[in-house]
Amino acid sequence: MIIDCHGHYTTAPEPLGEYRETQKAALANDPATVGSKGSVEISDEQIRHSLEGAQLRLQRERGTDLTIFSPRASWMAHHVGNEHTSKFWTQHTNELIRRVCDLYPQNFAPVCALPQSPGVDMTTSVAELRRCVEEMGFIGCNLNPDPSGGWWTGKPLDDESWYPLYETMVDLDVPAMVHVSSVCNENFHATGSHYLGADTTAFMQAMTSGLFERFPTMRWIIPHGGGAVPYHWGRFKGMAEDSQLKADAGTGPRFSTVEQLLNNIYFDTCVYHQPGIDLLTSVIPAKNILFASEMVGAVRGIDPESGEYYDDTKRYVEAALLTVDERQLIFEDNARRVFPRLNDYLDEVSYE
Amino acid sequence: MIIDCHGHYTTAPEPLGEYRETQKAALANDPATVGSKGSVEISDEQIRHSLEGAQLRLQRERGTDLTIFSPRASWMAHHVGNEHTSKFWTQHTNELIRRVCDLYPQNFAPVCALPQSPGVDMTTSVAELRRCVEEMGFIGCNLNPDPSGGWWTGKPLDDESWYPLYETMVDLDVPAMVHVSSVCNENFHATGSHYLGADTTAFMQAMTSGLFERFPTMRWIIPHGGGAVPYHWGRFKGMAEDSQLKADAGTGPRFSTVEQLLNNIYFDTCVYHQPGIDLLTSVIPAKNILFASEMVGAVRGIDPESGEYYDDTKRYVEAALLTVDERQLIFEDNARRVFPRLNDYLDEVSYE
Repeated sequence: MIIDCHGHYTTAPEPLGEYRETQKAALANDPATVGSKGSVEISDEQIRHSLEGAQLRLQRERGTDLTIFSPRASWMAHHVGNEHTSKFWTQHTNELIRRVCDLYPQNFAPVCALPQSPGVDMTTSVAELRRCVEEMGFIGCNLNPDPSGGWWTGKPLDDESWYPLYETMVDLDVPAMVHVSSVCNENFHATGSHYLGADTTAFMQAMTSGLFERFPTMRWIIPHGGGAVPYHWGRFKGMAEDSQLKADAGTGPRFSTVEQLLNNIYFDTCVYHQPGIDLLTSVIPAKNILFASEMVGAVRGIDPESGEYYDDTKRYVEAALLTVDERQLIFEDNARRVFPRLNDYLDEVSYE
Repeated sequence: MIIDCHGHYTTAPEPLGEYRETQKAALANDPATVGSKGSVEISDEQIRHSLEGAQLRLQRERGTDLTIFSPRASWMAHHVGNEHTSKFWTQHTNELIRRVCDLYPQNFAPVCALPQSPGVDMTTSVAELRRCVEEMGFIGCNLNPDPSGGWWTGKPLDDESWYPLYETMVDLDVPAMVHVSSVCNENFHATGSHYLGADTTAFMQAMTSGLFERFPTMRWIIPHGGGAVPYHWGRFKGMAEDSQLKADAGTGPRFSTVEQLLNNIYFDTCVYHQPGIDLLTSVIPAKNILFASEMVGAVRGIDPESGEYYDDTKRYVEAALLTVDERQLIFEDNARRVFPRLNDYLDEVSYE
C-alpha cells in the first residue's frame, strides 16, 4: 500500500472560494466583524467532479493508494480577518475534507486545518482539533508556524502559548504537519521561498529550544523534504554538536542533537527531482521519511527531460537506493506509525 | 590555486567589538544620534594574532591558498541604530579588512560590507562601494537583502530602490554576495534558519522579477550552497516552466527560467557534508559553483564520524564526482571570472 501523507484540496469547488470572498467583503467594511458561520453549498457531484480529473486520476496513473488530505494550505491564510473569520472558514474547509473522505474513503484520509489567528491563543484551535478528531474521525492537523503570513510577528513554536495545542495533540495521539500558508509580505513567494524557509525555521526552533524534551511523544512532519535541512544536514548536526561543547563550558545554550530530534520529527518526500530524493534518503534514516507528493500543488508541469510530472515523487523514491524494507517504511509503515489513527480508519474502510 | 570565495573576519580583535558597544550605548541614549566616525585602535600585531591561529592555520592545514575576505556577516547588523551608525561602523570594518589584506596579500583579497540601514536609500552604500573598490582595491561586496534583521520590512531585491547599487556594481564590474546578517526576530536563528531562508528568498526574488534582464551583466553569489535551492532544483525549475505556460495563456507573470538565472547567479560550496556537496555538484553546472568554506564560521567543530572539520569543504569537493576541468572551475577559474578585479589583485601579489 502506498500512502501519500501530503495532499491538499487545491481543486475545491467554486462555492468555497465564493464564501471566502464574502468574508473578505465583510471584513473590508468592518475588520472586527464577527459574522456567522453561514453555509457553503457544494453538491456531492461538484466534489466528485473536482477530484475525478485531478487527484483521483493522478492516484490511478501513478499507482498510489491513499492520500492524507487536508484543506488547501495557501487558503488557510490565517492572517485574513480576525479569530471569528478564521474559525468559520476553517470549520467549513475541514467539513469539506470530511465529505471528500466520506465519498472516497479508500482514497483519502482526513487531516484538519486549525483556526489560528495572529495574536489569538490556542483555545479555538484546540476546540477545532478535538471536534475534528473526536467527532469527525480526523487523524492529524496542519499547524501554521507563522499565522501572520510572512511577517513572523508571532511567537516561535517553543513558546508556552502553543502548549495547549501540543497537549491536545499528545492526548489525541495525532501528529502535526508544520505548514505555513500564503504570504502577504512581498519579499516572499509562497511556495518558492516562504514554504521552504518556514520548514527550516521550524526545525531550528525545535533544535534550539529542547521543545521535544517537554513533549517527548509529540510528532511533527516537516514538509517539502524538510526545507533546506537535509541538504545542510552537516551544518545542523555540527551546530547541535558545537552547542554541547558550549553548554558544557557554560558559554551557550544546549541544543537538541539531530539524533534526538529524529525521535519526533519526520520529513516528507515533496522534493521534485531525483538528486533531491537521493540526498534525502541517503542522509535521513528511512524511519523518518514519509512518502508524499503534495499533488495537485506547487509544481504541476511535466519535466521536459524525463517526460514525467515533477511532482510524481513515487518514481524518485522507487529509483532511490533503498532496501525493500526501507521503501516499505517510507511508502506505508511510517505513515501508520506517525498517524496511529490511520490504522483504525483503514480498518473501517473495506480496502481491497 | 584554490580560492575560497567566502570568509568573514569572525575573529577580529576586541577593540572592534568595543567600538560597536560604544555605538550602542550612544544609541541607547539617543536613537537618532549622529555621532562621529572616531577611531578603532588595533595594532598590526593584534591583527596577526587574530588570524595566525585561526584562518591562516586552517588555510595551511587544509591546503587552500586565498580567501576572499569580508567583515563578519553577523556583525554587519544593519538594523542597529541609524544610517550614521551603519556608515561609521561599516567604514571601520571595511578598513580593517583592507589592513588584513595589506598584511597578508597572498592569503586574503578584500570584499566590503555596505552601510545599509532600514528604509534608507542606497546613496551611502554606493559611496562606500566606490570608496572601497576605487580607492582601496576591493573586488566585491556583500549585499544584505534584509537590513531589518529578520523582519523583512524592506523592499525585495527587484525594487527600483536597489538600482543605484546595481548600476554601480555593473559600472565597477564587481559582484555581490547576497548575505544577511544577524537577526532580531526571535523566530529565526541567524546561521541556522535566517541565512538559509534568505538565500532561497533572494533566488526566488530574482526568478519572479526578471531583474537580470535589466542588469544582464550583474553577478550574484548566493552563499551557503544556495540555501534550499539546489536541493529543490526540480521545484524551482518546474515553477519557472509552469510560469511560462501561464504567461503564454495570459493567466500569470513570466518568471526567469533557471537556465536564464544561471547567467547571473552563482552558488558557493558552504555545505558541510559530502552528500550535500554531491547534490550541489550534480545539479548545478560547475561553471556556476565557487569554492567556499566560510571558515571560521557557523560550524566550528569536527565531525565525529569522519574526524575532520565539518567546514573543511575542500575535502568534499575533492571527493565529488567532477572532472579535472570542473574542479579547476570550482576551485579557481570561476572566482576569477565572477570577481574580475581579482586577477589584477593577484597579479600585483608576488604569488608563488
